[in-house]
This record gives sequence, structure tokens and C-alpha cells, in this order.
Amino acid sequence: MTQTDRPKIVLAYSGGLDTSIILKWLQTERGYDVVAFTADLGQGDEVEEARVKALNTGAVAAYALDLREEFVRDYVFPMFRSSALYEGYYLLGTSIARPLIAKKMVEIAEQEGAVAVSHGATGKGNDQVRFEMTAYALKPDIVTVAPWRDWDFQGRADLEAFAREHGIPVPTTQKDPWSMDANLLHISFEGGILEDPWNEPPAHMFKLTVSPEDAPDQPEYVEVEFENGDAVAINGERLSPAALLAKANEIGGRNGVGRIDLVENRFVGMKSRGVYETPGGTLLYHARRAVESLTLDREVLHQRDALAPKYAELVYNGFWFAPEREALQVYIDHVARSVTGTARLKLYKGNCTVVGRKAPGSLYDKDLVSFEAGGDYNQHDAGAFIKLNALRMRVQARVGAKAGQKEVERV
Amino acid sequence: MTQTDRPKIVLAYSGGLDTSIILKWLQTERGYDVVAFTADLGQGDEVEEARVKALNTGAVAAYALDLREEFVRDYVFPMFRSSALYEGYYLLGTSIARPLIAKKMVEIAEQEGAVAVSHGATGKGNDQVRFEMTAYALKPDIVTVAPWRDWDFQGRADLEAFAREHGIPVPTTQKDPWSMDANLLHISFEGGILEDPWNEPPAHMFKLTVSPEDAPDQPEYVEVEFENGDAVAINGERLSPAALLAKANEIGGRNGVGRIDLVENRFVGMKSRGVYETPGGTLLYHARRAVESLTLDREVLHQRDALAPKYAELVYNGFWFAPEREALQVYIDHVARSVTGTARLKLYKGNCTVVGRKAPGSLYDKDLVSFEAGGDYNQHDAGAFIKLNALRMRVQARVGAKAGQKEVERV
Amino acid sequence: MTQTDRPKIVLAYSGGLDTSIILKWLQTERGYDVVAFTADLGQGDEVEEARVKALNTGAVAAYALDLREEFVRDYVFPMFRSSALYEGYYLLGTSIARPLIAKKMVEIAEQEGAVAVSHGATGKGNDQVRFEMTAYALKPDIVTVAPWRDWDFQGRADLEAFAREHGIPVPTTQKDPWSMDANLLHISFEGGILEDPWNEPPAHMFKLTVSPEDAPDQPEYVEVEFENGDAVAINGERLSPAALLAKANEIGGRNGVGRIDLVENRFVGMKSRGVYETPGGTLLYHARRAVESLTLDREVLHQRDALAPKYAELVYNGFWFAPEREALQVYIDHVARSVTGTARLKLYKGNCTVVGRKAPGSLYDKDLVSFEAGGDYNQHDAGAFIKLNALRMRVQARVGAKAGQKEVERV
Amino acid sequence: MTQTDRPKIVLAYSGGLDTSIILKWLQTERGYDVVAFTADLGQGDEVEEARVKALNTGAVAAYALDLREEFVRDYVFPMFRSSALYEGYYLLGTSIARPLIAKKMVEIAEQEGAVAVSHGATGKGNDQVRFEMTAYALKPDIVTVAPWRDWDFQGRADLEAFAREHGIPVPTTQKDPWSMDANLLHISFEGGILEDPWNEPPAHMFKLTVSPEDAPDQPEYVEVEFENGDAVAINGERLSPAALLAKANEIGGRNGVGRIDLVENRFVGMKSRGVYETPGGTLLYHARRAVESLTLDREVLHQRDALAPKYAELVYNGFWFAPEREALQVYIDHVARSVTGTARLKLYKGNCTVVGRKAPGSLYDKDLVSFEAGGDYNQHDAGAFIKLNALRMRVQARVGAKAGQKEVERV
Repeated sequence: MTQTDRPKIVLAYSGGLDTSIILKWLQTERGYDVVAFTADLGQGDEVEEARVKALNTGAVAAYALDLREEFVRDYVFPMFRSSALYEGYYLLGTSIARPLIAKKMVEIAEQEGAVAVSHGATGKGNDQVRFEMTAYALKPDIVTVAPWRDWDFQGRADLEAFAREHGIPVPTTQKDPWSMDANLLHISFEGGILEDPWNEPPAHMFKLTVSPEDAPDQPEYVEVEFENGDAVAINGERLSPAALLAKANEIGGRNGVGRIDLVENRFVGMKSRGVYETPGGTLLYHARRAVESLTLDREVLHQRDALAPKYAELVYNGFWFAPEREALQVYIDHVARSVTGTARLKLYKGNCTVVGRKAPGSLYDKDLVSFEAGGDYNQHDAGAFIKLNALRMRVQARVGAKAGQKEVERV
Repeated sequence: MTQTDRPKIVLAYSGGLDTSIILKWLQTERGYDVVAFTADLGQGDEVEEARVKALNTGAVAAYALDLREEFVRDYVFPMFRSSALYEGYYLLGTSIARPLIAKKMVEIAEQEGAVAVSHGATGKGNDQVRFEMTAYALKPDIVTVAPWRDWDFQGRADLEAFAREHGIPVPTTQKDPWSMDANLLHISFEGGILEDPWNEPPAHMFKLTVSPEDAPDQPEYVEVEFENGDAVAINGERLSPAALLAKANEIGGRNGVGRIDLVENRFVGMKSRGVYETPGGTLLYHARRAVESLTLDREVLHQRDALAPKYAELVYNGFWFAPEREALQVYIDHVARSVTGTARLKLYKGNCTVVGRKAPGSLYDKDLVSFEAGGDYNQHDAGAFIKLNALRMRVQARVGAKAGQKEVERV
Repeated sequence: MTQTDRPKIVLAYSGGLDTSIILKWLQTERGYDVVAFTADLGQGDEVEEARVKALNTGAVAAYALDLREEFVRDYVFPMFRSSALYEGYYLLGTSIARPLIAKKMVEIAEQEGAVAVSHGATGKGNDQVRFEMTAYALKPDIVTVAPWRDWDFQGRADLEAFAREHGIPVPTTQKDPWSMDANLLHISFEGGILEDPWNEPPAHMFKLTVSPEDAPDQPEYVEVEFENGDAVAINGERLSPAALLAKANEIGGRNGVGRIDLVENRFVGMKSRGVYETPGGTLLYHARRAVESLTLDREVLHQRDALAPKYAELVYNGFWFAPEREALQVYIDHVARSVTGTARLKLYKGNCTVVGRKAPGSLYDKDLVSFEAGGDYNQHDAGAFIKLNALRMRVQARVGAKAGQKEVERV
Repeated sequence: MTQTDRPKIVLAYSGGLDTSIILKWLQTERGYDVVAFTADLGQGDEVEEARVKALNTGAVAAYALDLREEFVRDYVFPMFRSSALYEGYYLLGTSIARPLIAKKMVEIAEQEGAVAVSHGATGKGNDQVRFEMTAYALKPDIVTVAPWRDWDFQGRADLEAFAREHGIPVPTTQKDPWSMDANLLHISFEGGILEDPWNEPPAHMFKLTVSPEDAPDQPEYVEVEFENGDAVAINGERLSPAALLAKANEIGGRNGVGRIDLVENRFVGMKSRGVYETPGGTLLYHARRAVESLTLDREVLHQRDALAPKYAELVYNGFWFAPEREALQVYIDHVARSVTGTARLKLYKGNCTVVGRKAPGSLYDKDLVSFEAGGDYNQHDAGAFIKLNALRMRVQARVGAKAGQKEVERV
């Protein structure tokens, strides 16, 4: 591969038709030398194949990196420490992958002397924001190119004509009537037939989970161990972060756990419908909350839970590398440090129910709570506690009563 | 019933052994004339029986009131409008019943000229707070008597001896090794064998729900309609609030929906373990969130969700009649007004999954979100939107880079 | 004025050089028939003069409206009810005026059949956002034209050349080395010599306030009365909202009250330096807080104060007509209803100190707080109250102690 | 001093009449051996004198510790990093001193083998909570004795009789008609003639500040330097935390800065009136905010400011050693790390106005904000930014318009 004087651009390349077209378009229509980058985040594709294909499609260089451990250890697990859900349900599987991919793109750009980065995200979604926000935050002088926003193609026919013209093979099989994004944390589905929010997703769409109906007729019990805020073992087997998440996916998936169907609010201002499979994430979410319930102080838990929606919003909107996310992370990491213990879950045909939890530093005190007297809790204190808590309401009621009396007198 | 010069006290009377003992204790040990009050909140007991038993046990008067509609309409439904859960899971079934019972006690106290109220809640739990806080807020000069905090009995043997001594029949059947509280919204279980948070609750404990294993092998679909924030119809049948909740319980219950097992934080400062069955509440919770997802503006939803944990805490802690709960309710009611639409749920062996939602005033716009171009969304705008959102991070990165440079120079 | 087939645009027209150039530019370079609109918000200019000038400059129609009462009653006072400050200091004097101007522009656009609105705000500031966000929210199909973002002029020389070319008189006096925005609530100064945040603003810049050094040597006492959340009288004289604010400006201004010097964060992503004079607003802010301190319940006040920064951010960023601001307003208005009472302030050479407050429904209870015993507060209750509040910390300390002990044993 | 078999108690002893009575009462009426402890927090009293007096009054041991540096370094400055005010005004001068005193009491208790601690705080105030909460959090098995809640004296006559009886000298001078608490951060005044919140405090009450009227006729300029979140120098002179605060008090005090008059809400449920002098704290508060305005990211600042009221509440209520305060502190300390820079303040007859600020890592970018074009800010981006921010409001307006249309049609 010879050095040209054309500017270099790093492209997040999946190996699929669309990013192949983008690769060629950046090269032929925008005059870039394209450096392709394919990340293995556990999406299940062969990234080395994508690397070779990129070179064949005209890339001047191509990278394929296995990022699975980094993804789970430095992105998914820190996020999990927050117990945050976006809009009450979404476990942020796509959101959390984008900053890592963009960070690697920036690193490759610096290594390759590239001036720009590009991606295959559309102009209506969140991913463009997540990619570009990260790139700007890490390399403020970077140029971002979002072909879906910029090119003149009108619809897929134009795209495929361009592909054929440039020798990019166009699959003849029917495309799925939805689009998909997969990684070790989840698969998301959106678009196409899912755009009608009244339509139930078809059963054959799902990939990581069996349907609850097809799951085993016997419940499966699973124990998850946490140390200082992170899951470290499943059923007694210590695993690396990525291996643990994969294991959790396997267990959750075979029991039909973790399907979510949601209308959510995008950062760019519109509502969209997403369907998600997050078997391992769902399992770890409930397991973590169970261990938190023993090990986190009440007020700490409540404060943390009040901040979690904001944290989720930041991750969802692409502000992973923003200082406000980092500041909240410092708080969340501090809180998570005491989350050490074990949760026992029962999985059964889509259900994931906590049925037991224990912790060496548990703040649960059986003696304190027992109906029988004992411990250093004096029941007589409760009456006084209530009286002082009620004091301001009693004062207000008296003032109100006086006011009411006056109103009557006025008549 | 003759007028005495003894002071009157209103007792929340269930008809069971414990409140019968309390009735007698208030009368004989504290010198009160006892007015018993039994509320029908849908707990499934015969309240008229309790009324008669109260009179037989020595009450100078006894009330039995059917509060089911008031309970659901003025307490449960307003609370539901917040989509609040306590500590991520608990639907507040016991918490929301106590203020209504206490309010009625105060009303009866005023009617009967009683100076005090009493209840059978223990000195370690939340219910004492909820009862007494409400009483103080509504009648600041009320006296509250909490026998479980005040009497000298040591354990159940003493209690039962007192009962026998005063002719109160003591059941010879073995007590359940847990305690229970039931109403139209839920049944809660706590204490006894549940006090070990590692123990799974026994299958035969549950009453409102079949176990997922025993639920039908075919999924059941259900449609819930909301108008201006409240559920009004199930499967097209318009129902009163209480009837609707009962119907939702029936449907959810037969599909094993709504069991929760939780270690939670009490207001009096300890952790406790609670197990709950809330079939209808769970079903309505997810249905509501689905309709909210179409009808609530993104920022309104996020703001509401940031306030919901605080709202849940207030309800849980017994501050229903506090001005801060009332102020939040005004906000929540305003927000809920636009929640009009229908959710479609699939129930299957414990699962309750939203599979469709629609609304006449839906803010979801298929044209806007579709991958195909069109509508008044210009994709080019997105790049500029991202750039301005990233501006402060770019400035910071530049300053950081300069600072880094300086640090290097210093060396 | 004859009907043309050119599209109409409504321009927020001040009568100054810049908006005169804009008027002409919209007409000659963009082919619009321009409808000028000048609002009297108490900025002290003669709006009728501006109206005539607009017609002379080529406007097909020109409106001059006295909006002072509407401004204070429907915008300033509702905002004041929140006791919100932006970034700890800024009383939002410019921010709150923009939505009203934009709303009137939209109304005139509908009346005149105009398709577009335009304004003289630059492309770097907040005002463009406030104008255009309001226009979009009220009339989603409106076109907005922001000449400062769109035209090709490079610097003031180009602008003035265009002006002379089109017969617009260019003042020969030196421009102030800063820019200004005035209304009944405040004057803001920014730009020019103020852009160095280390520079003290020059004494002669200020207009609404004397400098503290030049204020009278004798303090002035003033009493402000509030009813249901709004100021209604000063020193016993009942005044309309606009007259009251004008009066407060006069009193505060002559005592040097209300100067603020701030580096603030704009919505478009940059920091900027602003200097403000808000004499009446400052006076009313402290007076209101004093009355709130007597009349608002503790928890309500704390909750309201936790929401106030978000409310301020919404107003600052131009989201006045957004549903999340409206929802917060419902809350704020509810809370404000009980703010009825009188504050006494001492003004002296820039100081504005509360020295007394009273309220008919005051929740302050002298008997309760007095060191002498009495009232229905039982001091013994306090010990129990503390114990229950400390319970969770005691449990945690014990667990920590045990953990520490174990760690020691391990060594 | 001989070893007795009486239990030991550590008493926070001021040397004044009241705590001398308490010392004797604990000894004679409660059978304790009293260990007196007097802390020098900069209140201006001679603590060694108190130590001797304690021994003379009957203490078995007496400690006098100079805690000024520890107080400012480990309590005041960490709290200042939050820029928190309680209820909008109060700088928490008394609140922040109590945890340190109580911590020392616990340390002395452990050293002396004491089983209990005692203090002179009344049963109606916040200080009892702050003392005892700290004690419980640090030593969960401690016994706390609050004589003001427990003894049978009725009013001051009883107290003084007891004093005389036990040879404690009773001052014959008239007591001030208010009570006072002083330390290096502030003096607070409450009670007595201040209990009527309509009464202006008398001019002769104040001690740390001259009245604005008596302050110099010439303004004084002062520069405060911050490094990584803490003030380190005044007017170029580097000082230890305590010395810096003393210096700030001196400068602020001679210019009449820092008087606050407030009705506030106590944790025990009542409103009370407090008057405070915090000259140095006020000066440092505004100086810090000025440096923050240059060095903190917008979203970080807004998030921090949203948490500050909660932080202030925790400090005020006595939860300094609670895990939720510690977790917030971790966040606040992280945020504060970048607060490095200098503020320039103008002090004049009670006014404390920021007139300049600079910082080596300032995020303020003059080129970006300047009206003239340039930098990497493209003004065209602003229009697109606004459009996407307005998108959800436009959708809503369209839906609303359609709904409105329908409503009209219905008529």
C-alpha cells in the first residue's frame, strides 16, 4: 500500500453492504484514503473477514480488534454500577458500545495520521451523536463525515446501483424487514415492520433468547457473586467480565429472559420504537439490585437512584466522555465499592426473580427487624420519632384551621 | 350504648386476635371507651363480621365501611399516575392504604367526640408512622396510642393469656410462619421464615397469583385503555376504578403476574424483607408506561421520572397528607392529563410484556422516524446539532491538551 | 399599502441601525414584504418612533405594542414565583422577555398571513434560540430567518456600506464599547471591553442604578407585600405588576442595589461574560424569599429549591413554551399560593438586607421555638428522634467494626 | 485524680455557666465521673482557662484542644467546595463545627474509657442532633446525655439556685437578650429579642463585622487564589486554611460584609430565626463561584448546583458522618479539583462584588464568544441546533393543533 497525499479517514466498518458502499463513496466521491476499522464487541460476526473485505473494497489499511474484554470491563460494568435504565426499561446496550468504537477510531486516526472519521449511522438516530460526540471530545479538531446525512442517493435503489457500479456485491436475499445492532450486551431491533408501535414483534426475529413459550419447563436457579460493585462469578465460577456476560447471556437466553419492547425518546427529538434482547444484562441487573438491597445504605441508595435516570440519559445521548458523566461515575464507583455479596435468581420461561441474597457486610439485621423485642432498637422511640416528623404538619394544620375559622368569621 | 365519662378512642379493628386484644387492653388497662372501625379495602374479609365481633368484645360503637372505590379512585390511581416504584420494585400496596384508614379514623373520632386513635401496627414497622402521621396531619391535637409499643406483654404467651383472661377466643390452629397484609392492590408477606433473606418464599404462601409454573400454557392478551391519566377500561369494558383493579388482579393473577421479593429500607431505619403479590398493579404499571411512552414529551417524562423516587419515598414513609406530597401530586396530575391511549399486553406464566400501544394524541411520528427521507426533519441539521452539543467538550479538550503540554514542559 | 405576492415576514424591530439594515436586507436580498414589530417592554425607548421609522425604511406594515403589563404579569411574575436564579446569580432579565416578543411575532404573523419571522440576534448567543424556539413551539410550520447567521457581510464596515447604499442613516457618534439589552426587569451589558473577564466594568456604563458609592448616606427601609405568590404593594401602595416593578426599580436603583457581574454558560456551548442591573428584581427576590421563609413548609421549600435551577435553565435556554417548563410552572404556582405576607428590607449603598418579615398564615411559631418549655413540643422526643435517625448509621458502624475486626484477625 | 468505679462521661465544656452546671449535674445527679473537653475552633475564648475551670468544678480530667486548622481544613473547606447554602443564604457556620467537636468527644471517650458523652445543646435545636448523630455514627454503643432534655429544672431561677448550691459562680451582669455561637467561620445569634421575626437586630449585637454604615468610605479590592478547589492565598499571600479564613474574616469584617438575617427550618420540625455574621465565608463563597464560573463545565456546574441544596441539608441536619454525605463529598471533591484560578472582589460598605476572575485552565474562550466571526464555531450550525431542539415541540404543537381542530368539530 503506497502513501498518497490524499487525506486519510477512519471508517467504522462492519463488512456489510452499507458500510462497503460508504467505504467506496468516501474514496471516490470525497477523495479520502480510507482506513477501515472493525471491532469485535461480541456481535458474533467474523471481524477478520470484514478486515479482508475492507482491503478488497479499496481500504488503504484495515484493522480488526477484539474489544470484548475492554468493552465489558471499562464500559458495560461501570455503567451497570449505576443500576440505570433509560426510560424505565432500556439497558443501553447500543448506547454503551458507541463511545468505545469511536475512541478506537480516534486512536487509529492519530496512529495513521487521519484527519477524519466516518460511520454508517443514519441522520435520524442516536448513534451518529454517540460516535461524533466521542470523537469531538477526544480529538477536538477531528472532522466527522456522516455519509447518510451527506450523500445524494435517494433510497436503496440508488445505493445498490452505486454498489454494482463499483463492484461491491449486493446480496440477493431479501433483507430483514427491520434493522439490527448486536454486541455482547444485547441485540436491538428497530425500523421496518416495527415502526408501527401497535404491531407485536414476530417470534422469529429474536436471536439471543428463546421465547418464553419455548424455554424449559423446569426453572433454573443461578447464583451471581459481586465484589466491590462488579459481578465476578456465576454459580461459583469466577469469570472475566466478558466471559461472565457471555455466560449470563447463555443462561438468561435459554430461559427466555430479557426481551424488552419500548417506544423511546431519541436525543435528536423524535420518538422511536425499539425491541431489545438483553438476557445477561437483565439477569445481572436484578442480581445487582438484590445485593445492593443488602449492602447500600438507604439514603445512599435513594440518592443514587435519583441520579440514575440522568446518568442513563447521558449514556443514551452519547455523553460518555463528557465531564458530567465522568463526575457522576466517580460518585457511582464510590457507592458501588460496598456492593459485595451473592444473589440467587430463579429463571423460568422469561421470568427472572430474585429469591435470595446474602452479603458479608450486609446491613440487614434480623434481630433488629424481628417482631420479637430485642437489639438496641427501643420501640418507645418510634412514637417520639413520629411526633417530631409530624410537627411541621401539625403546625400547618393549626394555621390552616385558624385560617379556616377566620374565613368563616368573615362571612 | 350508654354515654360514659371515659374518653373515647377509635381503633382500627380487623376482627383478628391481635386487635381484639388491643380493644380489650385499651378498655381495661387504659380506661378508654373503644370505637372500633373496620375498613373494607378489598382484603377479602367479611367486615360486617368484624363489626359484630367488636361490639361483642366490648366496643361502645363499631363501624364497618366499604372503602374500595374511594381507596382505588382517590389513593391508588393518583399514586399510579406517578409511575413510582419504591426502591425500584415495590408498588406501595400497603403504604397507600394506611392514610385512607387513618383519615377515616380521624373522621370517626370527630363524629364520636373521641380524643384518641389506636392501631395494631408494631413499633418497628412503617405502618405505625403512616397511621400516626396522617392522624397528626389531619387533627393536630389527636392522641395516638400504639399498644404494641406501650404494653408490658413479653411475647405471644402473655398476649394469649390476656386474651383468655378476657374471654377472647384464641385460635388453636397453627399461625402462618409469616404475617400478611391484604387489600385490593396487593398482599404483602413479611416476618417469620421470610426474615432470612436467603430463603425462597414457599409456593403455598401466595394467594392472589398462581405460580408461573401453574399458569396456563397459552399466553393471554389484554388491552388496557387510559383516559387523562387513569385506566378506564380492560379489553374494551369500562369499569369503575375498584372494579377495574379487581379485574386486573384476576387477569394478572391467573397468569402468575406480579410477585416481588425484596429487601427494602424502612423509614424507622432498618432493612426488612418483604414479598408482595400485586398482579393488577403490575399489569397497570406496564400498561401505563406504554401509553406514557407515546403521549408524554421526552423532557416531561424524564423530569417526572426523576421526581418519582421521591414521591415513592413520601408515600412509603407515610407522608401522604404532607404538603410536599400534595405539591408533587399537582405536578403529577398535570403531567398525567395527556396520558390517553391503549396498551396491549401479553401475559404468559408470570411475564407481562407490552407488545403494542396506541394513542389518539400520540407524539410518535412514523414519518419522522422512518429511515426513508421526508417530513420536516432535515438530516443535515443533525451534524450541526452535534457540533454545538460538543462545543464545550471540544473547548475543554483543547484546554486539557494545552495543560498537558505545559505539564510536560515543566518537567 | 398594497398587497403584493411576495411572502411576508415579521421582524422584531428596535428602530436602531442593525434592525433597520435587517429590514432592508430581508426586503431587497430575500424578497420579503417586511412587517415590523416593536414591543414596549419598558426599555425606555419611544416605540412609536420606531414604528414610523420602520415604515419609512420600507416596512409594509409596522406595529408598536405596549406589552409592559403583560410582560410583568404573565412572564416576570410567574418566573419570580420560582425564586430561581441562573447559575446562582442571574435574574434572567433578557431570557424572560424573548418568549413574549416571539409570541407576539407569531400572533402578528398569523394576523398578517406572514410565513416567516426574523430577529436581530446574533448566531452565537442565547436570544436566537429563545426567539426561534418560541416561534416553532407556537407555530410549527413557521420559517425563521436569522440574518446575522445568513448574510455575507464581513464586519461592521460592510454593514454600514449596505446601510448607506439603502439610505439608512448611520450614526456618526462612537458606539459604546459593549452591547446592551434593556427592559422593565433589567439592563444587560456584554461584549466589547467586557469580554475580558478580569476587567472591571466602567462606572459610567450603568443606567438603572447609581453606584453604591453615590447612593445616599442614609439607609432606606421598604416594605413589600405579597399575596398568593405575587408582590402586590410597596410601602403600602397597591400597584399593578408593571407599576410595582417600576417602583421597585426606582427604589432599588437609587440605593445602588442589583448589580451583578458574571461569567455564565450559554446554551449554544460557550461561556460568556455578562453584567446586569436588576434593582427591582433583586429587591423583590429577597423580599419574596423572606415571606417564603415564613409561609412555605420546609420540605416544600427544599423540593422547590431543588427544582429551581432546572427551571432557571429552561427559561435561560429558551424553553418557556416547552411542556416541561409548563409542568414545573404548575408545581411552582401551587407552591406559591401560600406566599402571602410582608417583608421589610433595608437598602443602603448597594446592600439589600431583609430585617423583618411577617405573614398572616405564618408557620413560624414563637412558642415552639422559645428556649422556655411549653407548647406541644416535648423535648424528650428529640432524643428518640435522633436515635431512630441514627439507627442505620449505627448498624453500618457495627458492620464496619466487624469488618475491621476481621481484617485485623486476618493479618 | 483517683480511679473510681463510676462510669465516665465526656462533656463538651465551654467554661460558661450552663455547661458548668451540667458538669456538676452529671456528677452529682447522674453519678458520672466527668471528663471535660473544650475545643478551640476560633471562637475567641481562652480554652486553657476553661480547662482549669472544669477541673475546679469537679471534672476528673479536662482537655483543651486547638482544632482551628483541622476545623477549617477538614470540615469548612470540604464543605465550601460544594458552594452550598442552606435555604439560599445560610453558610452553615454552626452546623459544620458540631461534627468535629463530637468526633473529638468520641475519641476522648475511647481514650478515657468513657461510656457516654454529653453536651449543652437544648432539646429544641439542631445542635443536639448534630452532636448525637455524630457520636452514634462513630461509636454506635455510646450513651448520649442531653441534660437540657432530661433535668427537672424549671427555668433559669432553678438552674442558678443549683449553681449557687454547688459553688458555681453565677455572673451578676445582665445576660444578652439573645444567645450566641462563635467559631472561626461565623457567629450566630438567636433567641430572645430575635424571636420576633419582624424585629430588626440591634446594631450593637454584631461582633465580627462593622455595620456597613461604619465601614470605610473607600472600597477595598481583594484577590483570592484557589488551587484544586481550595482557597490558598489572599492578595498573593499563601496562608494555611485557618489563617486564610481568619484573614478573610478580618478583611470582610472591616468592610461590613457577611451579615445574614434568616428564618430557617430546623431538622426537629420548627422554624426559627437566626442572624449570622460570616465575613470571610461570604467573601470566599463569591470568590469561589467566580473561579468556578471559568473552570467548571456547564453541565457539571448545573448538576453540582442541583445537588448542593441536598448537601447543605445533610450538613445542617447533622449527617456529616452519614454515608450519603460522604458519597456526595466524593463527587464534590472530584468536581472541585479543576477549580484553580483567581477572583478579584470589590468590598465596600457591606457589598462584596466580583469584578474580575482569571484561571490558567479557563474554559472561557474570548474568540469563541466575540461578536466578530472566527474560531471553530460556525454560526450556521445554530439554526440547525435550534431546529432539532425544537423538534419535539413542533410535533406536539401539530398534535395539539389536530386535537384542537377535532374539539372544534365536535361542537
